[in-house]
Amino acid sequence: MSPKITGELLRLLRQAMRNCKYFSEPIHAYIVPSGDAHQSEYIAPCDCRREFICGFNGSAGTAIITEQHAAMWTDGRYFLQASQQMDNNWALMKMGLKETPSQEDWLINVLPENSKVGVDPWIIAADQWKNMSKALTSAGHSLVAVQDNLIDVVWTDRPDRPSTQLHTLGLEYTGISWQDKITMLRGKMTERKISWFVATALDEIAWLFNLRGADINYNPVFFAYAIVGMNSIRLFVDLKRLSDTVVRDHLQLDSPRRPELSVQTFPYESVYTELQAICAALGPKDKVWICDKASCALMQVVPKAHRTPIPYTPLCLSKAVKNATEIKGMKMAHIKDAVALCELFAWLEKEDVLNEFLSVFLSSQQKDFVGLSFPTISSVGPNGAIIHYRPLPETNRTLTVNEVYLIDSGAQYIDGTTDVTRTVHFGTPSAFEKECFTYVLKGHIAVSAAIFPNGTKGHLLDSFARAALWESGLDYLHGTGHGVGCFLNVHEGPCGISYKTFADEPLEAGMIVSDEPGYYEDGSFGIRIENVVLVVPAKPKYNYRNRGSLTFEPLTLVPIQVKMMNTELLTQKEKDWVNEYHRRCREVVGAELERQGRMEALQWLVRETQPVV
Amino acid sequence: MSPKITGELLRLLRQAMRNCKYFSEPIHAYIVPSGDAHQSEYIAPCDCRREFICGFNGSAGTAIITEQHAAMWTDGRYFLQASQQMDNNWALMKMGLKETPSQEDWLINVLPENSKVGVDPWIIAADQWKNMSKALTSAGHSLVAVQDNLIDVVWTDRPDRPSTQLHTLGLEYTGISWQDKITMLRGKMTERKISWFVATALDEIAWLFNLRGADINYNPVFFAYAIVGMNSIRLFVDLKRLSDTVVRDHLQLDSPRRPELSVQTFPYESVYTELQAICAALGPKDKVWICDKASCALMQVVPKAHRTPIPYTPLCLSKAVKNATEIKGMKMAHIKDAVALCELFAWLEKEDVLNEFLSVFLSSQQKDFVGLSFPTISSVGPNGAIIHYRPLPETNRTLTVNEVYLIDSGAQYIDGTTDVTRTVHFGTPSAFEKECFTYVLKGHIAVSAAIFPNGTKGHLLDSFARAALWESGLDYLHGTGHGVGCFLNVHEGPCGISYKTFADEPLEAGMIVSDEPGYYEDGSFGIRIENVVLVVPAKPKYNYRNRGSLTFEPLTLVPIQVKMMNTELLTQKEKDWVNEYHRRCREVVGAELERQGRMEALQWLVRETQPVV
Repeated sequence: MSPKITGELLRLLRQAMRNCKYFSEPIHAYIVPSGDAHQSEYIAPCDCRREFICGFNGSAGTAIITEQHAAMWTDGRYFLQASQQMDNNWALMKMGLKETPSQEDWLINVLPENSKVGVDPWIIAADQWKNMSKALTSAGHSLVAVQDNLIDVVWTDRPDRPSTQLHTLGLEYTGISWQDKITMLRGKMTERKISWFVATALDEIAWLFNLRGADINYNPVFFAYAIVGMNSIRLFVDLKRLSDTVVRDHLQLDSPRRPELSVQTFPYESVYTELQAICAALGPKDKVWICDKASCALMQVVPKAHRTPIPYTPLCLSKAVKNATEIKGMKMAHIKDAVALCELFAWLEKEDVLNEFLSVFLSSQQKDFVGLSFPTISSVGPNGAIIHYRPLPETNRTLTVNEVYLIDSGAQYIDGTTDVTRTVHFGTPSAFEKECFTYVLKGHIAVSAAIFPNGTKGHLLDSFARAALWESGLDYLHGTGHGVGCFLNVHEGPCGISYKTFADEPLEAGMIVSDEPGYYEDGSFGIRIENVVLVVPAKPKYNYRNRGSLTFEPLTLVPIQVKMMNTELLTQKEKDWVNEYHRRCREVVGAELERQGRMEALQWLVRETQPVV
Repeated sequence: MSPKITGELLRLLRQAMRNCKYFSEPIHAYIVPSGDAHQSEYIAPCDCRREFICGFNGSAGTAIITEQHAAMWTDGRYFLQASQQMDNNWALMKMGLKETPSQEDWLINVLPENSKVGVDPWIIAADQWKNMSKALTSAGHSLVAVQDNLIDVVWTDRPDRPSTQLHTLGLEYTGISWQDKITMLRGKMTERKISWFVATALDEIAWLFNLRGADINYNPVFFAYAIVGMNSIRLFVDLKRLSDTVVRDHLQLDSPRRPELSVQTFPYESVYTELQAICAALGPKDKVWICDKASCALMQVVPKAHRTPIPYTPLCLSKAVKNATEIKGMKMAHIKDAVALCELFAWLEKEDVLNEFLSVFLSSQQKDFVGLSFPTISSVGPNGAIIHYRPLPETNRTLTVNEVYLIDSGAQYIDGTTDVTRTVHFGTPSAFEKECFTYVLKGHIAVSAAIFPNGTKGHLLDSFARAALWESGLDYLHGTGHGVGCFLNVHEGPCGISYKTFADEPLEAGMIVSDEPGYYEDGSFGIRIENVVLVVPAKPKYNYRNRGSLTFEPLTLVPIQVKMMNTELLTQKEKDWVNEYHRRCREVVGAELERQGRMEALQWLVRETQPVV
């Protein structure tokens, strides 16, 4: 991996920062967040501005350029990758380490007095703007909105914004019509005395209207905004996409049955002026719900007195709690995924070259396959220590029997989204590799088997995943789990399992999260064991204050390699968990392998699920 | 326990709320927080306004009175006690339960439009004022500062503010002079470019000046404020207290050696005008450090542009990390406390009447005893389920061999502060009592034996204390641990172990916290196992990224009753922990019992520390 050469680009950008054509005064620093106008995690090529300017293409990172400096902040998953992708013009700011300054502190330290810090108000979230602005102002600087994006100014061959075909999802996949979702949303608005709701997150809009697109790789979403009032529904989207009669019928565009459920459509870009018009007509008591993760540009359209900012929207919470149809779909998707992975592993034992396309090919043979849910991470030996490593021709390593192999893959099926990581060895793992794997496994089991009261937030479970590693002085620098969408984004809020947040929503039955502790030994190997798990009611012996209890049911059903375990480090309870898990893998996935006639994979599955004693 | 009759008091208070003598307009609601002007947890009798108006005398609670309603918010420790102490005029608002509205939401719900909500700005913390004011304003109401305290208006026989004798502490107890503490503080101020620091917390002022008082029961502090500049030190205190020559010499009032370390003294009440004078003379870049837990009244003296509010002060953090002298003192104090408790338990096995005074008497025989560090909780059977139960004549129960006995006691010695809870049975505990006790013990051990990376915040350890209870559907409605001062407040910040906070400071070697999980079966029994533990470096097998690891060393050395354990539920590791802990109790406390010739207690100790198999 050779770094991107950025000297000339930075020179041009700094020229633009000084150019009063874009802002009335010269700008002393320019912030390039990684998101798009919807604060999406995965973004379309036209929105990869941070990657364009610094070369680092991980999913999280913020670049800041001043007259003298260029620095990029990212988290532990990406330290190695970022250091390899950026040239010497860039300083890597390792988030989460004590010595790393925050963006605000760094700016305050390097800027001359009374500086102007610029940012595109469409790609900075309102809450980030607020915090950054407050910190800069208190140090005598100011944060300013630069309407033209300065990266676009220097990005001469920037791609167009995608506008792919829209697909409708029927009740057999969604379990509930978009009309009923609108009615539920309005119920919550009434409860909180809210007149208008502005939807800006792409997965929430896709979920709300039971529509999917392919504008962004891996996330089956489409560029849109929506504004829902008590009697109107406005959808902002490239209008060309609405010529399809299936889509028109689905949205009842030509024959709305009830006026309050008729959808008015507007061009994507007109959301700003339309929201302005709505706000101009607000009564004194009218309140507008808008997520504080929405763009600063949109948030500022709503007058402060009418704003009710929320850390996440009612759609986000409704979407997180899967209904019976969605749960059934997610289970089906995970069985299909397990079939593909069993085949892959059976194949890899015979072959000696790692092939990402093989994994895609195998998944694609399964019913209702749409695409991957994120770029497959398939890494051998030291590459495994790059937490979000993607195979590239330059770094590809041949699969050998001497190294640990880590594969983290996921797919989008029409009925559900998957995400699974397995770490295996095709030869003889070292004692240290087995020891670390076993600590990670103990952490995985500690979360998966945990019983906890209703109302518990996911962050309270994070330490369970680390206790065994901590006891030996080890750890991993990422969270333990994220919410998973149903044929939607593989990462979604508002629940998760991480030490990093305190504002997560309590876990409740029907939510789906990942459980993925790991251990990464720089320059040597990477280990992660990830299942997607469903929150389900538990029935322990007692029921304190009638609060009820919850636990997790694994949806992922792929064997965990016994060869990598040091079973002496496992308690009897942990061995029982492994054996019961493998029994279920064999029962459920075995039946499907048999049905599909994939006998080689079935033999592999049977062999890999022998009980541990 | 019969509730306080409050009808007439509420009538008088509501009269005062309507009286424009106290505020220019009638007030629709009046908030009575439980603190004093220093946001102390324990308060002097003259500050017990919330208790005066509603009858509930627990350490935490806020009363709000409107024209029609009177409601009091408190947490899980006090649900039973509050319901017994308050009459029917009061609604008990159980904090932490999902159905309980916040104070803000409740007010917004019950108040007519455009209401005025009053509060004494001296006894509401600045951050609470800010949150409350914001919530009320957004709902069309306003929070107003009522200068005269309206409870004082109706409290005709309110006691005077105490002004007890000040005691000086030498280097043999503090390890560092107050002059060096001032210099350290100024170092931190220089680092952050701060010109002035306002100290309002009583324990921080006592710690800073190496002085102690007895103005508040259990907390060896005195009413004072301090303002520290780079060249001046102002101490605000009842000047009569400074006539003692020992105190004058300690503070070098008559012969300051260096001008920047000379203490100027002012009357306690003049802090407001003096801070106003300082603020009037501030340069444009001068910043004032003031804790956002300081009173709203004082915070508002500092112009916004000059305020640097902080969640806790540098004194709070310095004080939390004990130096070698303090750690030695704390260890000594806990040995003395253990001696007293061994004697008490040996005695109780023979006697059948519970006697709180016996416990005080036994502690008081130990060297350097000053008093209790909080009211002893000594409860039998169902009283144990009242988490902060104090024995009162009406509810006193005779000690029997049929019920669980819980004692939570602590003392102030000149060299340290203690806090220990033991739960014992003098007859035969039921299987359920033993089961619950064992889960609590497993939680206690899980925290005490935990190894975790440097930089870990205490809240990340909270779930370890609950896992065994959760697994059986049980839980407890309080945090797991609090910081403990050294001959100071038994509860102190900024560290602790609780699911409730995310803003705690990372644990570091030298910090001292309690480890006290529990289980409370309403109407039947209460269980809690509490040790005070010191954060110490740990040396596990590996050292990931050279971060270093920490663990806890118990300072409390009192046997945990083996009779209450169901040893079948303990793992071998847990049994080893119990046996090693009991070996240390016997070794350290046994030697001291022998030295003091307390042979009956020694025999008891030896018997109670037989190894568990």
